[in-house]
Amino acid sequence: MTAFKSTKLLGTAALVALAVALPAFGQEVDPEAAEEVVETLSEGVSADVVFILNSFIMILGGILVMWMAAGFAMLEAGFVRTKNVSMQLVKNISLFSLAAIAYYLVGYNLMYPLGNWAIGADETGGYLGAFGVAVLEAVGITADGADDFEYASTSSDFFFQVMFAATTASIVSGTVAERIKLLPFLIFVFFLTAIIYPIQASWSWGEGFLDSQFGFSDFAGSTIVHSVGGWAALAGAILIGARAGKFNPDGSVNAMPGSNMALATLGTFILWMGWFGFNGASQLAMGSVGDVADVGRIMANTNAGAAGGAIAALILTSIIYKKVDITFILNGALAGLVSVTAEPLTPGLGTASLIGAVGGVIVVLTVPLLDKLKIDDVVGAIPVHLFAGIWGTIAVVFTNSDATLFGQLASIVIVGIFVFVASFVIWLILKTTIGLRPSEDDEALGLDKAEVGVEAYPEF
Amino acid sequence: MTAFKSTKLLGTAALVALAVALPAFGQEVDPEAAEEVVETLSEGVSADVVFILNSFIMILGGILVMWMAAGFAMLEAGFVRTKNVSMQLVKNISLFSLAAIAYYLVGYNLMYPLGNWAIGADETGGYLGAFGVAVLEAVGITADGADDFEYASTSSDFFFQVMFAATTASIVSGTVAERIKLLPFLIFVFFLTAIIYPIQASWSWGEGFLDSQFGFSDFAGSTIVHSVGGWAALAGAILIGARAGKFNPDGSVNAMPGSNMALATLGTFILWMGWFGFNGASQLAMGSVGDVADVGRIMANTNAGAAGGAIAALILTSIIYKKVDITFILNGALAGLVSVTAEPLTPGLGTASLIGAVGGVIVVLTVPLLDKLKIDDVVGAIPVHLFAGIWGTIAVVFTNSDATLFGQLASIVIVGIFVFVASFVIWLILKTTIGLRPSEDDEALGLDKAEVGVEAYPEF
Amino acid sequence: MTAFKSTKLLGTAALVALAVALPAFGQEVDPEAAEEVVETLSEGVSADVVFILNSFIMILGGILVMWMAAGFAMLEAGFVRTKNVSMQLVKNISLFSLAAIAYYLVGYNLMYPLGNWAIGADETGGYLGAFGVAVLEAVGITADGADDFEYASTSSDFFFQVMFAATTASIVSGTVAERIKLLPFLIFVFFLTAIIYPIQASWSWGEGFLDSQFGFSDFAGSTIVHSVGGWAALAGAILIGARAGKFNPDGSVNAMPGSNMALATLGTFILWMGWFGFNGASQLAMGSVGDVADVGRIMANTNAGAAGGAIAALILTSIIYKKVDITFILNGALAGLVSVTAEPLTPGLGTASLIGAVGGVIVVLTVPLLDKLKIDDVVGAIPVHLFAGIWGTIAVVFTNSDATLFGQLASIVIVGIFVFVASFVIWLILKTTIGLRPSEDDEALGLDKAEVGVEAYPEF
Repeated sequence: MTAFKSTKLLGTAALVALAVALPAFGQEVDPEAAEEVVETLSEGVSADVVFILNSFIMILGGILVMWMAAGFAMLEAGFVRTKNVSMQLVKNISLFSLAAIAYYLVGYNLMYPLGNWAIGADETGGYLGAFGVAVLEAVGITADGADDFEYASTSSDFFFQVMFAATTASIVSGTVAERIKLLPFLIFVFFLTAIIYPIQASWSWGEGFLDSQFGFSDFAGSTIVHSVGGWAALAGAILIGARAGKFNPDGSVNAMPGSNMALATLGTFILWMGWFGFNGASQLAMGSVGDVADVGRIMANTNAGAAGGAIAALILTSIIYKKVDITFILNGALAGLVSVTAEPLTPGLGTASLIGAVGGVIVVLTVPLLDKLKIDDVVGAIPVHLFAGIWGTIAVVFTNSDATLFGQLASIVIVGIFVFVASFVIWLILKTTIGLRPSEDDEALGLDKAEVGVEAYPEF
Repeated sequence: MTAFKSTKLLGTAALVALAVALPAFGQEVDPEAAEEVVETLSEGVSADVVFILNSFIMILGGILVMWMAAGFAMLEAGFVRTKNVSMQLVKNISLFSLAAIAYYLVGYNLMYPLGNWAIGADETGGYLGAFGVAVLEAVGITADGADDFEYASTSSDFFFQVMFAATTASIVSGTVAERIKLLPFLIFVFFLTAIIYPIQASWSWGEGFLDSQFGFSDFAGSTIVHSVGGWAALAGAILIGARAGKFNPDGSVNAMPGSNMALATLGTFILWMGWFGFNGASQLAMGSVGDVADVGRIMANTNAGAAGGAIAALILTSIIYKKVDITFILNGALAGLVSVTAEPLTPGLGTASLIGAVGGVIVVLTVPLLDKLKIDDVVGAIPVHLFAGIWGTIAVVFTNSDATLFGQLASIVIVGIFVFVASFVIWLILKTTIGLRPSEDDEALGLDKAEVGVEAYPEF
Repeated sequence: MTAFKSTKLLGTAALVALAVALPAFGQEVDPEAAEEVVETLSEGVSADVVFILNSFIMILGGILVMWMAAGFAMLEAGFVRTKNVSMQLVKNISLFSLAAIAYYLVGYNLMYPLGNWAIGADETGGYLGAFGVAVLEAVGITADGADDFEYASTSSDFFFQVMFAATTASIVSGTVAERIKLLPFLIFVFFLTAIIYPIQASWSWGEGFLDSQFGFSDFAGSTIVHSVGGWAALAGAILIGARAGKFNPDGSVNAMPGSNMALATLGTFILWMGWFGFNGASQLAMGSVGDVADVGRIMANTNAGAAGGAIAALILTSIIYKKVDITFILNGALAGLVSVTAEPLTPGLGTASLIGAVGGVIVVLTVPLLDKLKIDDVVGAIPVHLFAGIWGTIAVVFTNSDATLFGQLASIVIVGIFVFVASFVIWLILKTTIGLRPSEDDEALGLDKAEVGVEAYPEF
């Protein structure tokens, strides 16, 4: 993002004034200077227009990232078994709604303290932000009434950021699907989106200590959003345990195929589309030639990363399994997207494709690994969002000289420990109080009949 | 919407001219004044850019509201039984297409008479607009060729408004699903979108008598779109009667579960996304700092309203039924959206959530009420669009001091009577001429086999 | 697209300077002239803003056209039988990913030689462009660093254009569904998107010989995209042959109903929405009053064309078959969209509806024709994209006086011969080497079990 430079316009107007006024009083004017004036006069973007365009790109981004919630819902509804589809849909629309409220009540101010750190300070590095509800600017503000006229409207910023908090929670719901009760899941979502996500995000995007002390660079959130969702999901998966019948005592694994590949594919395409908002609007600016060209670069690179991930997974599964596995192709595309999210701007198109391709390879290789560890991740969210997220965060150093390997690794570890431990504690408290799992009978019956009371496909 | 203020730019340029020209002739210039000039010069939005950005936000809004047609199609396809899914899809894509033509042929000019009232006048209050097809501006206009250079291009305005007419019809199709023949349904849609919707919309958005005499305030159409669809649906449901087997003689109700909750959830998410265009682009302007900040407010509030509606329905159904009912959560989110539609700008985020939450509560409480009245509303469109629409229209007075309780209530009643009576008459004429219902055999067989000839899921 | 005219702003500033400076020296100023200055000063769009808005409309267009890939995936998944759904989904997401890579590696530079023709030249007419990978502008460019500051950023142009290449391939996958192996299909996609599509597109959009010698006018690609996909599909369908059991020896045809009309309808709505980007953003500019008004016209006309196509197909199938066939209504809407794509700007709304309606009629009449020719087109892509594409290209001459009937027909034929022959050769090489069809057993079993290993709906 660049602030508007007014000096050029001023100088131009001055030249024009001279060019016109002087001859009116019999003075001579240099024709070349006048020509230059003509050219220069037609450039520049006024501060109001910068504000409008910066705000707008975040509004558009917010719409697209909201749409990712539908993508997660369809992906997960397609990857669970029929008897749990309604529950998965309920969880997805409820978590999104709850995240919106939690982020409004607590998360937004915690994430963007704007200097009001409860612990730490902008200079020394902030650790814990301010508590309080989000407040937007008044209706019909003028430039003077804007919270930050050099940047964008608070409303568009809030609208964009609230969607990121919800995305983090969406990642969790897929991993722990099919064997967690609704109430403990939603309580966890509240703490994740109100407290855990915003606090760690404040350390970097809120200009806290990871930003000031480690120079952490994570453009749109490979770590700050995706690995955070992945760590929270991992902690949950460990404490909740696997679905009944998933792992046999002899170490073998029972496949539990998802019920609807068309929905899963639709969900992947929705996420792919929404990611253009996720990454592209994270430029946070569109009010200059450079910013809009950068937004275009990010869009093209994001697409290249997804394509690389899908094709890599397609080729690798063909080689390993002699068949193409659609679930790996879908997750390969998503892993490609996660991988380019930490740095979608600086790579060229070819590099972006390769970064995404490595993400796709990671998914194909690590899904079996989780099975060996008897960690039951229903939709593969941990390989996609956590493992590819870590990869993408490290890969920043290949193309962005502002990032250091140490700063990236240290930040990955610090965020990881904080989120995993905090999540583990919350999951543990929920497990020991209201309990996480439905009864064995309810799990066998399916959560749709047990908890929702409405089957997803009652006539089939 | 605010018109561009050119005086600031003019004053600035004048100051610059002075600041430059005077020293050239040996006069002194106040450095502080020059400094101020530098700042001010970089502000302001030219009239061309205002026109472009105003037009663009309506173009974007039109795309998003068109997308709502897909949302209604999926929601309704998910809520009807398998044997009527193809028919519901046919109705949705046909009604949208027909509405586009009807609104072009008659509706647009009827809704925006621009002073050419057939009955009434702008000053005294218009009652009936002008007849004639919609005509767009020529290709490649300049400022002088624009119909309204202070506002936006006619083409973007038409593109945005035609989608609202179609939305009204989409609301009707859900209520009367599963037991109405295609032809009478489409004939009704034509009259609704060509005549009924545009006439009542002209009274407020077309600057007719509800605007001038009652100060009616309905930002994006809780009443003007949603309750209108609801009234038309109610009239139809009464005259068509319930589906065979829905209500038993002893007063009990047979549940007829929808066939596909994944589609219904997808439809809800699509509508939620599309609503950002519905409400956000109803600002009708994005060419100033205030306008874009307002658009951001509307987006954030719209999201808050939907979230509030979903969570309220989730909690209330958990309490009442001891299970969460996904259909209520989906309709709760939609009712939240309808509720904030009359005033998505002036509330704060918390208030918007609460307004939406009340909408969610209304749905949970009134769906059983319709059953008691033996009114068969297949998808719950009357609670969502009519009841929550009335609530949202009343709720305007809590946050917008320009609205009066009397003006709101009177407008709700006037629009309601007009739309209900006009719809009732058209439904009645159709009933007594070509008939509304398929034969009992056809209804039992399902409309897909009877009328469409293509089953939705032939292999299942 | 119009370049920014800076002269007006210069003149204005000059007048202001005079108006201010003269009185300061005791000279008189004409009040009317000063008034005019006030008005004029508030107009105009700076070159930076033009660049930003031009780039942005292509970014938005790219997002929307990417979304069409999901539309094709859903449409085709809905139109194939259950046993081939996973394969169809795999093909769609893989072809899109592969097209992105192929167009980056070869296609983009081949399509836009920017004067670097390998065969031919801009003046005499170019025939074959340059080979080499696509290179975007650097990060954070200023006006001086832009490849074409008068137009838009290269990144947004690439992002928009890569989606068109993918669309061409999406058209093919539907026709040859259910009986082609994955590998030969993807190899064909690579050559189509890397070589065939870009070369013929360079002849018109890349300013090659169809543009310079024939004045070919195809605004958004009825011929350049849609008929190209159609010709490639036709060549494939002929060489691959029909699905086993489709055509009986006695000449009768076995209906093979698609498995999921809800998905097919969703796909159609997605394509309809995406088409607003396809056609609207093909204006390639939004930085002036005329451009944004034109974009609005295109949006409204595109919607009118789709509506006309759907309603025409609805009426015609009702008359011919006495039932409404949802597959024809969906394809009618798509044919309407294809038909207005060659000229979505110059027609009025009524004419656009009629052009689309003829497209809908063409589909209803030519689907049986293909059956008679024993050409098995699973989703009806040849009638929709090829036949309606030819119609739309011819229809340009009715409303756009820059197009000649000869130029249009000659271009249709030249593009058709090139694409059909080139595609036929590639399909033939594939057939005689690795083979196109799965074994009869595999085809009977379904490609999901045979090649993908994951069924789409395993529990049904």
